[in-house]
Amino acid sequence: MNRVLFAVILSALISSTAYAGRWEALPEVAPAPEDNPTTEARVALGKMLFFDPRFSSTGTVSCFSCHNVMEGGDDHRPTSIGVHGQAGGRNAPTVWNAAFNSAQFWDGRAPTLEEQAKGPPVNPIEMGMQDLDAAISRVKAIPGYKPYFDAAFGPGDNITIDNAAKAVSAYERTLITPNSPYDRHVMGKQHGMTEQQVRGMETFANTGCTACHSGANFNGPTLPMGQGFFQKFPTFADKLHVKKYKLTDDPGRMQVTEQQADRNMWRVPTLRNLVDTAPYMHNGEVKTLDEAVRVMAKTQLDKDLSEGEVADIVAFLEALRGTYPEQSMPRLPPTPGDLLK
Amino acid sequence: MNRVLFAVILSALISSTAYAGRWEALPEVAPAPEDNPTTEARVALGKMLFFDPRFSSTGTVSCFSCHNVMEGGDDHRPTSIGVHGQAGGRNAPTVWNAAFNSAQFWDGRAPTLEEQAKGPPVNPIEMGMQDLDAAISRVKAIPGYKPYFDAAFGPGDNITIDNAAKAVSAYERTLITPNSPYDRHVMGKQHGMTEQQVRGMETFANTGCTACHSGANFNGPTLPMGQGFFQKFPTFADKLHVKKYKLTDDPGRMQVTEQQADRNMWRVPTLRNLVDTAPYMHNGEVKTLDEAVRVMAKTQLDKDLSEGEVADIVAFLEALRGTYPEQSMPRLPPTPGDLLK
Repeated sequence: MNRVLFAVILSALISSTAYAGRWEALPEVAPAPEDNPTTEARVALGKMLFFDPRFSSTGTVSCFSCHNVMEGGDDHRPTSIGVHGQAGGRNAPTVWNAAFNSAQFWDGRAPTLEEQAKGPPVNPIEMGMQDLDAAISRVKAIPGYKPYFDAAFGPGDNITIDNAAKAVSAYERTLITPNSPYDRHVMGKQHGMTEQQVRGMETFANTGCTACHSGANFNGPTLPMGQGFFQKFPTFADKLHVKKYKLTDDPGRMQVTEQQADRNMWRVPTLRNLVDTAPYMHNGEVKTLDEAVRVMAKTQLDKDLSEGEVADIVAFLEALRGTYPEQSMPRLPPTPGDLLK
Repeated sequence: MNRVLFAVILSALISSTAYAGRWEALPEVAPAPEDNPTTEARVALGKMLFFDPRFSSTGTVSCFSCHNVMEGGDDHRPTSIGVHGQAGGRNAPTVWNAAFNSAQFWDGRAPTLEEQAKGPPVNPIEMGMQDLDAAISRVKAIPGYKPYFDAAFGPGDNITIDNAAKAVSAYERTLITPNSPYDRHVMGKQHGMTEQQVRGMETFANTGCTACHSGANFNGPTLPMGQGFFQKFPTFADKLHVKKYKLTDDPGRMQVTEQQADRNMWRVPTLRNLVDTAPYMHNGEVKTLDEAVRVMAKTQLDKDLSEGEVADIVAFLEALRGTYPEQSMPRLPPTPGDLLK
């Protein structure tokens, strides 16, 4: 097809919705910081560390435990369970496409994947290690890891928490899901969205969802790494939903900044692969996607959607389910017996 | 090479040890019961179920949690941790080559892999489901599993606990590790054992270890499925090791049969891949392989090995580390939001 003609048709398709922004497809490659290129060796090491439960106090909890990459990148639970059966306070955010977040965690307290990776190992409820030194000591005690650190970071004294975090982040930057029906639609490719999904996309924009859920990852505008895109949730705090789903119990970003202005402020999460990540919201209190749509429309935009509109938006959200890459299982080096205490 | 000549050389090699039995290589294919052929569709479904934590009460514990096939098929811990942070009483046996056991569990209480697979889901300490009906209800509630059951078992009302157990068992029958240095040695192939490993093999046989650890999987003679090969451990119960490592605290098979004769009787475990499965013994009390060799020689055979003999046997046991197959990660179907309670 003539490129100009193609562009005209595409633009006509796109302008059929009221969304003033651009409908963007997900990039096939995630951006990486200058000091941590996504090399094959770093990805391989990072995948091993991601799946290895030995860096938790009990040896039972790995990144994979709560970020199940064989599924939606979360754990199906309202809130996650870490060591000693302890439940955390927030819903595990998906690791899929997390590389496209400009800040990490629900409250955006980590500016990068590299900083995020250092959180869970020392969270007493999650992996429960005393400190990061203790965590990296566990890695050092497994001689089979050394050649992988050498390959990833060059020989030397390279088993450091920073390098481990870099490797895990490099792996996470490969966890992206392009080629959803939505992506094919906006790229003018075959096998795009159904009629209902296109209608749902328009309803999504017309309702105002795109005010926050914009951009290729539907998590807001592209910002410099570390500058999170935060919004208040719920905005209309007197709704019945707020009480029913305990939406204001957690002060959100205020826990990080200790500023009243940040009460109930949250990083805007991605909407990609939502069909694989029930339950919803920061506390996992909303179980189904249709109810999540109703709750957001009412608490954020003060709108009551018709059941038809809800169904159309859900259909559109289903079109944001991308193609998960095939992955091989890593092979983890053995624990030397004398490491065991 | 002439087959007869080859056989003569092989037999000469083998008769260089005192072992009256045969040194057997691990078969490349595991035997399967007539009613559960190891088909591709059953293996694919079984792998999904094996990795899926949603059939535990908390949604956090899968077969993989304690049988880490990215490593030695166990969990590096003395005893495993199930739901609610509860620790079990015995060391997780490796799932690698479990297809070559004629009975399953340390006490042999399950005659087949199929029966074994139905144990952990309803063990209150392990996966904690109320009963098997509750476990299979969880599978039924995930519509994405249905096509896989159809492919594996033919269409119909096929999501049953028996079929789920068959699928998991079919997957487990692919978890075998042939082509160890030992296997190459006994098959007369290149890259067999080192001189020390060959010496260790002789010491292993001369010491009497082969009385129990015989056969291709070093877990005793080939018996009909269900007829476990049991031995008393410890035999010499007054040894210091017995007290130090609490070897008689657990009555073993007596818990199953309630017969005094079965006190401290155990299924003879495989010795393959021991370097990947520290710690050792039914209670995981012995941390290193060299100490495990000393303990076994003393408590079972009343022998004090020299340090050189211990080192040689350890070298031989290292030669039993086989080739782990490359595996792709399964992709698990999503949880419908209304399944979440």
